[in-house]
Amino acid sequence: MKPLILVTNDDGMFAPGIKALVEVAQKLGEVVVVAPNSPQSGQGHAITLTEPLRLHKVDVFGEIPAYECSGTPVDCVKLAKHVILKDRKIDLCVSGINHGSNASINIIYSGTMSAAMEASIEGIPSIGFSYLDFSFEADFEGCQYYAKRIIQQALNKKLGTAQLLNVNIPALPLDDLKGVKVCRQAEGTWKEEFAEAQDPRGQSYYWLTGSFGIETEDPTTDIWALNNGYVSVVPSMHDLTDHKSLPGLKHLEKL
Amino acid sequence: MKPLILVTNDDGMFAPGIKALVEVAQKLGEVVVVAPNSPQSGQGHAITLTEPLRLHKVDVFGEIPAYECSGTPVDCVKLAKHVILKDRKIDLCVSGINHGSNASINIIYSGTMSAAMEASIEGIPSIGFSYLDFSFEADFEGCQYYAKRIIQQALNKKLGTAQLLNVNIPALPLDDLKGVKVCRQAEGTWKEEFAEAQDPRGQSYYWLTGSFGIETEDPTTDIWALNNGYVSVVPSMHDLTDHKSLPGLKHLEKL
Repeated sequence: MKPLILVTNDDGMFAPGIKALVEVAQKLGEVVVVAPNSPQSGQGHAITLTEPLRLHKVDVFGEIPAYECSGTPVDCVKLAKHVILKDRKIDLCVSGINHGSNASINIIYSGTMSAAMEASIEGIPSIGFSYLDFSFEADFEGCQYYAKRIIQQALNKKLGTAQLLNVNIPALPLDDLKGVKVCRQAEGTWKEEFAEAQDPRGQSYYWLTGSFGIETEDPTTDIWALNNGYVSVVPSMHDLTDHKSLPGLKHLEKL
Repeated sequence: MKPLILVTNDDGMFAPGIKALVEVAQKLGEVVVVAPNSPQSGQGHAITLTEPLRLHKVDVFGEIPAYECSGTPVDCVKLAKHVILKDRKIDLCVSGINHGSNASINIIYSGTMSAAMEASIEGIPSIGFSYLDFSFEADFEGCQYYAKRIIQQALNKKLGTAQLLNVNIPALPLDDLKGVKVCRQAEGTWKEEFAEAQDPRGQSYYWLTGSFGIETEDPTTDIWALNNGYVSVVPSMHDLTDHKSLPGLKHLEKL
């Protein structure tokens, strides 16, 4: 029996990235697609509590069942598991291919990675893919090459104890990619600003802007791997406990 | 000079929990409040990219400057740091007091904890407080007692290497609280369902429902601490790397 693969993303059903990922996944298993009906970049791990969610079956990928959801990427995964595929075992969730990097701290803002993380919280092995090329005309050949091989490893249960992978692919032609580096999330923050302007009624508004461009010489990090032409693979997790800081807080128990 | 304390939350400016936290913080430092103008529970680490943000100064806490923001809790922290308090050093960010638990996996869905985490990403020591009582008539005496003492430790730089604390307080009167436990995030997931119904036009919709009620006998976890009458303190972090799984993935470098 073919493995059941859930495909999702945060850019919506018509992004070239999800099409590229569906093309890979359908060669490796039975595919069901559940994706947001509008772009959801930056939605992080948001869920919809105060509004109802809509779900519509759409004909985007031919024979492959595809559902548009009115919620966030995490909502998509919850609806996939608890409604659409309720009585079935999902063998793997793949999210993306995101248009833009989710390396370093970007994992935490990313709808693509949060969808993948939600699946892993639910016990489904999961992989998020992101491509460092924002263009909707981007060439996905390199992404597809590595996505296929990494998904095969996951389906063959060759990921050890890892439940969630954050995979980023440099914006390079396949022949220029140097291979895969297994690495850790680089420490980094956005250099942030807000553009302030006035609307037609003279009221101020603020619009988030900023740049992310950390450099690091540390070859154990995802940023180094990407800057040096490697596909970065970071095993990630949802236990946010800062275990190393536990001993230094014991005195709080005497408050 | 008094330390500068940023207060935020995800329940909005008129929630009793933020009032209780402002009352504590104003005894310990100079306080500025930046909070969402609508409830933002479950917003996780969402940020607003495709819309402008509005910011209005409001008179809610008397002399204490307070700003309402149209965005998410994470947007509030970004605006506080990069616009409202642009040229000042924020000594501490406190978020909450949330109406409801953010223990175990709830940290990842929580706007309250994501605001605190955003501050820690920006290099600001940060503490999120959550109270296991949803009632807007809840008694915050126990929360205030422990919040004050934990904030004092933070301001006196007595948190060791911890940059972010997730503090949860059982729904008990102060006298029944047994003290503080420093612990790790319990493994747990929501038992989730969707209520399906039809709108007045006959179209189906889905509404997220579910329950979170894991039991654990492991005294190193936050859930155990809370179930046994202790305030739980979990040092948390934004490095999501699953370090222990790195060695088991090395073979991917040969793909």
